[in-house]
Amino acid sequence: MLNNDKLKSSRLAARYGTSHLEQDTPVAWNETMDLLTRHRTVRQYEPKPVGQESINALAIAAQSAASSSNLQMWSVVEVRNPETIAEISQVCTQQHVAEAPVVLIWLADYSRIQAVAERTHEKAESIGFLDSLLSCVVDVGIAAQNAVVAAESLGLGTVYLGSVRNNAQRIAELLHLPPLTIPVMGLSVGWPDPAEHADVKPRLPLSTILHHETYNVDAFAQALAQYEPISAEYYRRFNLGESWTERVHERAVDGRSERNKAYMTQWLKDHGFGLK
Amino acid sequence: MLNNDKLKSSRLAARYGTSHLEQDTPVAWNETMDLLTRHRTVRQYEPKPVGQESINALAIAAQSAASSSNLQMWSVVEVRNPETIAEISQVCTQQHVAEAPVVLIWLADYSRIQAVAERTHEKAESIGFLDSLLSCVVDVGIAAQNAVVAAESLGLGTVYLGSVRNNAQRIAELLHLPPLTIPVMGLSVGWPDPAEHADVKPRLPLSTILHHETYNVDAFAQALAQYEPISAEYYRRFNLGESWTERVHERAVDGRSERNKAYMTQWLKDHGFGLK
Repeated sequence: MLNNDKLKSSRLAARYGTSHLEQDTPVAWNETMDLLTRHRTVRQYEPKPVGQESINALAIAAQSAASSSNLQMWSVVEVRNPETIAEISQVCTQQHVAEAPVVLIWLADYSRIQAVAERTHEKAESIGFLDSLLSCVVDVGIAAQNAVVAAESLGLGTVYLGSVRNNAQRIAELLHLPPLTIPVMGLSVGWPDPAEHADVKPRLPLSTILHHETYNVDAFAQALAQYEPISAEYYRRFNLGESWTERVHERAVDGRSERNKAYMTQWLKDHGFGLK
Repeated sequence: MLNNDKLKSSRLAARYGTSHLEQDTPVAWNETMDLLTRHRTVRQYEPKPVGQESINALAIAAQSAASSSNLQMWSVVEVRNPETIAEISQVCTQQHVAEAPVVLIWLADYSRIQAVAERTHEKAESIGFLDSLLSCVVDVGIAAQNAVVAAESLGLGTVYLGSVRNNAQRIAELLHLPPLTIPVMGLSVGWPDPAEHADVKPRLPLSTILHHETYNVDAFAQALAQYEPISAEYYRRFNLGESWTERVHERAVDGRSERNKAYMTQWLKDHGFGLK
């Protein structure tokens, strides 16, 4: 399978749309690249149990990823209880979550850092600063993505659920979260149902994402002209809307406060985070 | 190599310290698990060029990772110019950065979202909200980690550089970053020098990271008793300090403002982010 030019071409065509990535763009390739590029979101699962050995592997993969200063400021709660999963599904307002055999909830976790500080009757100062939270949340993403790669290598499918932050308080109650932990995202895990109507999602051209030496602001206009029709075909095929720019308007331009989780800043402050 | 129990045991022993992961913990295994668990930070490189096909592969892997609502709110700048790398190294105050053949700077990028909004003379409301920034920064971590997995699969070594945020303004100037972009972290990339004095870093026991149904606050005390001596052996071996709790004190408990990048909140506000 290694260096199979045909396979590589088909993966890149699915990821960028045919003729989207310039023919002369050199790309190193191997089986891992094949695994990573064929990623797609999986929301529909076979009624087949996910063994503990799989979830352990995902968590070990996550722990094996880099950690800023080795502080390891994240945790993950494995949820299998269908009643709890149904409650999480309500928070997410996504029905497919209720059908997942396992939902992992990824936490930013300052509780261990504070427990270390308390051994000398101190307070962990980093809890007061926004930059520390950004660093922590990046590390949650880094860890979780290693778990996703492990999952897909084992044949499992996943979907991230940023929508657990629709109601962080409810998630905290459901999972008995201690102080100084924040539910950052969920991850549904299960064996992909081959009948699911889904495919690899095309992305913006490489030219507007990867810059050389300095940021090229001019790349986006051309990239968007290429991407908009490719995205439109994909979104319409799966009844997801009209196109990428329509999705951007819905999710990022329009000012609906529930979409922007406007409660979050106050919730974090109420829970001990300084955000200085 | 698949299902090689001896290899699996040695990977887990390196990651958790011998006898650290309970013998009866079942763990699914394959070549990808082997790749992910043997990760280590690489700061010392062979004087051998890193081809463009490799960096393209890393960026394509990153684009293949999940993206919240497919908004794709990140970019990456590939830096090869030794003078720019030397400047980045000064921001990071890490000499080893200057020796890297390539440094990738990962950006949270709202500029494309705002460009879409401007087509209808609007402002992207999500720029005003902290939760949107957290979501964006998680996605930066998710994307970058796929690049790291791709890099290691190709035989390359990497080290994340959160320290580029020591001076976001200087990085923005060096890379001519447009408004509404934030340098979140760097990533040095190169061919590992086998002479580097380094090894896989042991992590906290799985029991304090992975929770079942609800968060188990009691797990940490026992986990720390196991981990502290394992970490102490590692930190002393590489002259990194005394132990994990000492590192936690240095990096998260002590209140040095430069460590906490106390300027960041104002810098973000000055650059158009509302943090509501």
